Amino acid sequence: MKRSFIREILESVDCETISFAGGLPNENHFPVKDLKDANLKLYENSKNLQYAQSNGIEELRQQIAEFYNEEGFETNASNILITTGSQQALYVIAKNYQSKDIVIEEPSYLGAINTFKMNSMIISTAELNNDGVNIDKFRFAFEKTKLAYLIPDFQNPKGSLYSQEKREKIARMTLENNAYIIEDAPYTQLYFEKKPKSISSMIPNNSLHLGSFSKTLSPSLRVGWIRANEEIIKELTMIKETIDLHSCSIAQYTVSNYLNDSSKYKKHLQKLREAYKTKMEFFVKALKKHLPSFEFTKPMGGMFIYGRLKDVDTYELVQECIKEKVVFVPASQFYLDKKICDEIRFNFTHSSQEDVEIGLIKINSIYGAFKNEENLIT
Amino acid sequence: MKRSFIREILESVDCETISFAGGLPNENHFPVKDLKDANLKLYENSKNLQYAQSNGIEELRQQIAEFYNEEGFETNASNILITTGSQQALYVIAKNYQSKDIVIEEPSYLGAINTFKMNSMIISTAELNNDGVNIDKFRFAFEKTKLAYLIPDFQNPKGSLYSQEKREKIARMTLENNAYIIEDAPYTQLYFEKKPKSISSMIPNNSLHLGSFSKTLSPSLRVGWIRANEEIIKELTMIKETIDLHSCSIAQYTVSNYLNDSSKYKKHLQKLREAYKTKMEFFVKALKKHLPSFEFTKPMGGMFIYGRLKDVDTYELVQECIKEKVVFVPASQFYLDKKICDEIRFNFTHSSQEDVEIGLIKINSIYGAFKNEENLIT
Repeated sequence: MKRSFIREILESVDCETISFAGGLPNENHFPVKDLKDANLKLYENSKNLQYAQSNGIEELRQQIAEFYNEEGFETNASNILITTGSQQALYVIAKNYQSKDIVIEEPSYLGAINTFKMNSMIISTAELNNDGVNIDKFRFAFEKTKLAYLIPDFQNPKGSLYSQEKREKIARMTLENNAYIIEDAPYTQLYFEKKPKSISSMIPNNSLHLGSFSKTLSPSLRVGWIRANEEIIKELTMIKETIDLHSCSIAQYTVSNYLNDSSKYKKHLQKLREAYKTKMEFFVKALKKHLPSFEFTKPMGGMFIYGRLKDVDTYELVQECIKEKVVFVPASQFYLDKKICDEIRFNFTHSSQEDVEIGLIKINSIYGAFKNEENLIT
Repeated sequence: MKRSFIREILESVDCETISFAGGLPNENHFPVKDLKDANLKLYENSKNLQYAQSNGIEELRQQIAEFYNEEGFETNASNILITTGSQQALYVIAKNYQSKDIVIEEPSYLGAINTFKMNSMIISTAELNNDGVNIDKFRFAFEKTKLAYLIPDFQNPKGSLYSQEKREKIARMTLENNAYIIEDAPYTQLYFEKKPKSISSMIPNNSLHLGSFSKTLSPSLRVGWIRANEEIIKELTMIKETIDLHSCSIAQYTVSNYLNDSSKYKKHLQKLREAYKTKMEFFVKALKKHLPSFEFTKPMGGMFIYGRLKDVDTYELVQECIKEKVVFVPASQFYLDKKICDEIRFNFTHSSQEDVEIGLIKINSIYGAFKNEENLIT
């Protein structure tokens, strides 16, 4: 088992390095003042500092359930398990389905792959296209595994968005096979045009829907959740309490107090989407200007621009880039067998405009040198 | 796998029930004002709200290392892994030693037993006496398992304290067998007379020493840690980041800011010890007066009074007590095979003096009825 390339990179690069690597939200857009007020408030009652319920504090589970209900996806507080970020949601689920078969998109989120492997799950893959997973390949695997892990909204790493047609097909397939899907949705709120409708809402009893406040409020809180049927939530709660009794309740009360004014949260999300859309547009323009060989599709939301830099192993390229103080994630990391790969994931939410330009110019220059070298060898 | 009896009880009893069950610190002794100030301070830098290092924030790891150094137990920040409470420390370790043999004290902490079982560890036991584990039985098992889980200071549930002689014997045995001990020390700071010296300090490379702020500052923070050699910490960090990327950094910064004034922390601990000693003395007196059949040894620290109520299955007794709105933990829960058992664990830190008296009088009356019934049947 290797450590996550991204976590290692995040911890090893110095602060002078321009990083397009991590899935970092932009610190300038954290609602610092409002979070601070919400946090402060919990100290009014010293009972809030006591041990809390394993499945999460009641108020917060109720508020999250309400978000689902607002969209017509009927949900009670007892359908919600609070986790230490989405990552723990994945771990708890992987532990529950330990040694079982699962089909995932390829490429997919590295943290999920590692978690599934660590719990001896047997992973099949289905190719991910720009409108969602390749349905024929997916069906072939899913009929056997009866369990799938999907990121339909602004996928990590690919940024892709499932078409409505594919969503409906997968929902149908799930019921036909008496199967389950794990729908990971940390980026859903970061849409640029229209909020996508979850697959889970079409199959409430056959889905585990994962959400998180890491990308919308702050990752430091480590507050995520699972929405599933009550029976599954009970099973997962047993695992969750064996792992850490319960998630930090300082953070849970902070989020809950923050959400008490729901119009504030909605305004914040609206501003965040606008800011990230602007950042995406700038990154796209900069790519076209400074790294013209990079082929990509403009994302409709989320945090990533994904594409192809022809005729280069991007894993080798990034090693050189790190020396020159710029870093991205070579996409081989998102493939199960880490095969040689010419794809790249860029994060567009974190860096300043100046850094985007400097960073891309550097990458282009190193890429040029690489190509020349290769030509010499051939 | 059953849910933890204690967690279930904590969540199911209503607020009118007098509970001697949970290992709850007393809310009146949380340093609310100082924690609030420490918490507030983190909002001065919005970077504190970003993703943090997997192994924990540097400042806090440094401060914890310093505590060890003050006692002559040489430790660097790189020897520390921050976890979501001690419970996660146990889980991460159990995952690392998955399917391996381990010897534990009997009785022992239920959360540890569940975690070891969940990770398919093969558990042997050695009887725990009032001065520590039975050395002959321990040696017999330890020579085979090469891994032990011990709570030498004010054990949960037994409240027992290891003698210096037993500590030294176990340290020697560990080195002779090229083995490891997991030393769980959440109660160490709650001593009434003298701080016990850890076994780990005698065998720094062959020990995993676990600490927590749950019993000293607040359990809501979910901040615990593991102190071990760097190689082990690296292995455990890989597991930790697969579970939840990192522990809540709001809580980590809060603790770190709080500890910046170390004299404040020391004064707080001193006051806490005095308050808990007073509560223990009161509980002891009340037991002698209201539940005279209960045989026990006065603890030297920690949170529990443990003993025997002859001729009754305390698991059956507690079912009746719950109906009468008083609850404790029947000790069968702390045994591997949950055998019928006449022992009880009382928590003495949480209830008010009034509740202690009312609760014990109720238990005595139900116990009396039980004994009479039994006499009728025989």
